[in-house]
Amino acid sequence: MGKTSKQAFNIFFGNSNYNVNENTAKFIEKLFGINWGNRIWDGNINAPQIAVDDELKQILLKCINIESISFDPVDRMKHSIGKSSIEILNSRLSILPGIVDAVVYPDQDEVYNLVKTLKKENIHITVYGGGTSVTGGLISKYTGKGRTVSIDTSKLKKIELRDGIVFCGAGFTGKELEEILNTKGKTMGNFPESFNYSTVGGWIATKESGQESNQYGDIEDMVSYIELVRTDGLFSDRYSPRSSSGISVKDVAMGSEGKCGIIMNAGIKVYNLPERRHYYSYFFKSFKDGIKSLMQMEKFPTVLRLSDETETEFLFLSQNNSMATDIFSKYLSLRQVNRGSLLILINNNARFKKPSNSVYSGRTIARIWENTRYERPYFGNVLWEHGLVPDTLETSVSWENIIKLYDEAILSFNNSIRELNIAGIIMSHISHFYIDGCAIYFTFIIKTDKTDDLIKIRKNMVNVFLHNGGSITHHHGLGKFFEEFAGDNSVFMKMLRDDIFDK
Amino acid sequence: MGKTSKQAFNIFFGNSNYNVNENTAKFIEKLFGINWGNRIWDGNINAPQIAVDDELKQILLKCINIESISFDPVDRMKHSIGKSSIEILNSRLSILPGIVDAVVYPDQDEVYNLVKTLKKENIHITVYGGGTSVTGGLISKYTGKGRTVSIDTSKLKKIELRDGIVFCGAGFTGKELEEILNTKGKTMGNFPESFNYSTVGGWIATKESGQESNQYGDIEDMVSYIELVRTDGLFSDRYSPRSSSGISVKDVAMGSEGKCGIIMNAGIKVYNLPERRHYYSYFFKSFKDGIKSLMQMEKFPTVLRLSDETETEFLFLSQNNSMATDIFSKYLSLRQVNRGSLLILINNNARFKKPSNSVYSGRTIARIWENTRYERPYFGNVLWEHGLVPDTLETSVSWENIIKLYDEAILSFNNSIRELNIAGIIMSHISHFYIDGCAIYFTFIIKTDKTDDLIKIRKNMVNVFLHNGGSITHHHGLGKFFEEFAGDNSVFMKMLRDDIFDK
Repeated sequence: MGKTSKQAFNIFFGNSNYNVNENTAKFIEKLFGINWGNRIWDGNINAPQIAVDDELKQILLKCINIESISFDPVDRMKHSIGKSSIEILNSRLSILPGIVDAVVYPDQDEVYNLVKTLKKENIHITVYGGGTSVTGGLISKYTGKGRTVSIDTSKLKKIELRDGIVFCGAGFTGKELEEILNTKGKTMGNFPESFNYSTVGGWIATKESGQESNQYGDIEDMVSYIELVRTDGLFSDRYSPRSSSGISVKDVAMGSEGKCGIIMNAGIKVYNLPERRHYYSYFFKSFKDGIKSLMQMEKFPTVLRLSDETETEFLFLSQNNSMATDIFSKYLSLRQVNRGSLLILINNNARFKKPSNSVYSGRTIARIWENTRYERPYFGNVLWEHGLVPDTLETSVSWENIIKLYDEAILSFNNSIRELNIAGIIMSHISHFYIDGCAIYFTFIIKTDKTDDLIKIRKNMVNVFLHNGGSITHHHGLGKFFEEFAGDNSVFMKMLRDDIFDK
Repeated sequence: MGKTSKQAFNIFFGNSNYNVNENTAKFIEKLFGINWGNRIWDGNINAPQIAVDDELKQILLKCINIESISFDPVDRMKHSIGKSSIEILNSRLSILPGIVDAVVYPDQDEVYNLVKTLKKENIHITVYGGGTSVTGGLISKYTGKGRTVSIDTSKLKKIELRDGIVFCGAGFTGKELEEILNTKGKTMGNFPESFNYSTVGGWIATKESGQESNQYGDIEDMVSYIELVRTDGLFSDRYSPRSSSGISVKDVAMGSEGKCGIIMNAGIKVYNLPERRHYYSYFFKSFKDGIKSLMQMEKFPTVLRLSDETETEFLFLSQNNSMATDIFSKYLSLRQVNRGSLLILINNNARFKKPSNSVYSGRTIARIWENTRYERPYFGNVLWEHGLVPDTLETSVSWENIIKLYDEAILSFNNSIRELNIAGIIMSHISHFYIDGCAIYFTFIIKTDKTDDLIKIRKNMVNVFLHNGGSITHHHGLGKFFEEFAGDNSVFMKMLRDDIFDK
């Protein structure tokens, strides 16, 4: 076994200098008692001296080209550390998880042979799509206890567009796939915040949902066909628009979290690009007034995002033109809603009527939101650089329970930071709508150097979700952090597991 | 063991005298060379002398009240013979399948204890919902090879209506559940042809889809929550509008076909009753012209049913007022579509625009269709009584392949009856629409006394479906007859099976 030299891995995506305006910077400085000029971390993690396992190399060479095998320590770190706040905080604290022993980049023809060989050699597998997991999905339970190889799906990029459906490799990112479809006048309608990085395979494995789910559905509504490679074979649904032919490969692959095989190809429904998008913004007096208005709807527009008072204030903070902001604030005051709760509404191809009890506030805010919809994580990078810890948690809950869950989640956060004696702020929006409820998304920022503080806040909040009839997660998936909450589901996960895939 | 006396079981649902008009009767008489006055069978099957298994009775009494156990031979036959044409033809020919050894009607509190006891005693289980399976779903592989008990879900009728969701027992029929919801101004939007008899549990186990699926979705879109009782425990999803918490109980129960446990309760999304339904009918010059028009649509109305030329002619046959029919036919001739291909279109709450290349033909036909939407099987009863064999097969297929599949399926049927030297007629409609394709439904009538003839025709047609990229079935489920086609899915079914449930 050879040794490799020390290198650095940068954990940030898109770490170009994201611009935070002065108002926001001042607000954060004051809240957390920090100096904005003082960046304490650049996102780099020094790679430890990790060995190249020559025996493993020989095994891998039996089933994959040498160009498709990597023992590079930075590459191995990249494939072992996701984007969860727990992992990023640990990285900043130089607490490293187990690192995979190799990374392989198989093409479609190599996948099955590869997993069969790894099974024969009793080598564990983790699967890597876009690396955007915020739930510890990349963490391996086996690194350090026998060999683990990360299978990177980025070479799985076959594509075939037919009427109403695109068959494509699991390795396509949202951006790559959508760009190809757009040139043909089509869209898949899937726009998660991770759109630029996350992949088809990752969406399916985690049961994701995009920002336009009200129109295009969640990932299970979008996908008609899945090919799953397991150590016992290649399994595929017979493609059709819909089928009642028993438990399908799709049923098994959806939410399988990399434990039941590798998602290799999928068939995703495609739609004509909207001819026109209609943009609206509205204000409600309060977040709860907004919720009460929206819960009356039976049909929802393409995009509908209601921010609570804190998130709304953050938007005002980010405006540079203070005169325009003042005038706008006066307008809202005169109409009795003040700067209460902002609603962004976008609808494809048709106008959408004004929600009850709302005050119209123009198209611009909705357009700005759309233009910056994938940038929030870059703001997160800046916060990390300043020694802060940004994080998000989300759940879905019935209309009956939404307000109580919101109140208790906010209370839980505030109680937690008081008990831990740390500074913090929490804000929220609701953004995916169903006849029986909605998804609610919490963003919080704390200042701590203890991962345990973060874990405590998270667990307390998830317990509030569950206590109030919420789901563990609406669209982030379980990963390793939420497995303990999975309960009954985990029984079926175990039955369906492919045993060399990471538990 | 005691012996019971001979009794008759009637296999028909709704066998009140369904009225077939003179034109239709004459057409059928001529086509099949039969005499309409001559009814050869009343749907009765004589129950064989079947024993009461006293030892089994003692076992059942350990976990269920005596009033909830039946050894009645008619009841046992009812729970062992479904509504597939293969089973009905066999019944007319006095070829009986294995009959279950007992029927039990547990309430919710008895189910788990019951299945645990049956497991301990190695007694097999079949699950009975509404008894409407047309795929051999009730056929047990174990009767005659050890004991089999049928668990009837009709006492599972807990109900609780909340905002946007109803939690209800698996034993509710469509009619029962919808009537309760309607009194509250709500609807579940699920209207399969079997609506009057089929149950919540059966819909889930077979992955059904109702006639208004374009608006309300297929059963997987309607259900948010499932409780599944297995011999290893009671499993339930944590209810929420949507979740990304791994492979769910819902994923496993959908399409589980009674092999993975008993579906005990479900949460089904509910909607406000439509304020108004808009009715339309249109004619196309040909079925293919109609298909080409509809495949351009991106949004589909609540109900959309396009009949081929033969099915359209059958509608004209069923009209009693020949003068009105003549005038109507002239109207269609003048507009160049003749009596080609009929489209029924119903949309809730909003008007729907005229499909391209169609000729409007009033609201009445759509209203008649709606009023008689559950009656086709009663017409089937009359055909059975006259010695004929009506049957249906359905599939879903991409827009690219729909016309070729249709042509080849019709050809296959006609080739089959020619080879078998029997009379027959086949007709078709498309009725469930997706961005990437549709479901197509074939109805055929043959005259034969050989079950093998029927099986041959069916297999040939399903092979045509598969050969042309169709699914095995769109909404009837696999049952016992289509299992052989299930392929990859069956691997996962096996992993998830609960081993005393009928394979």
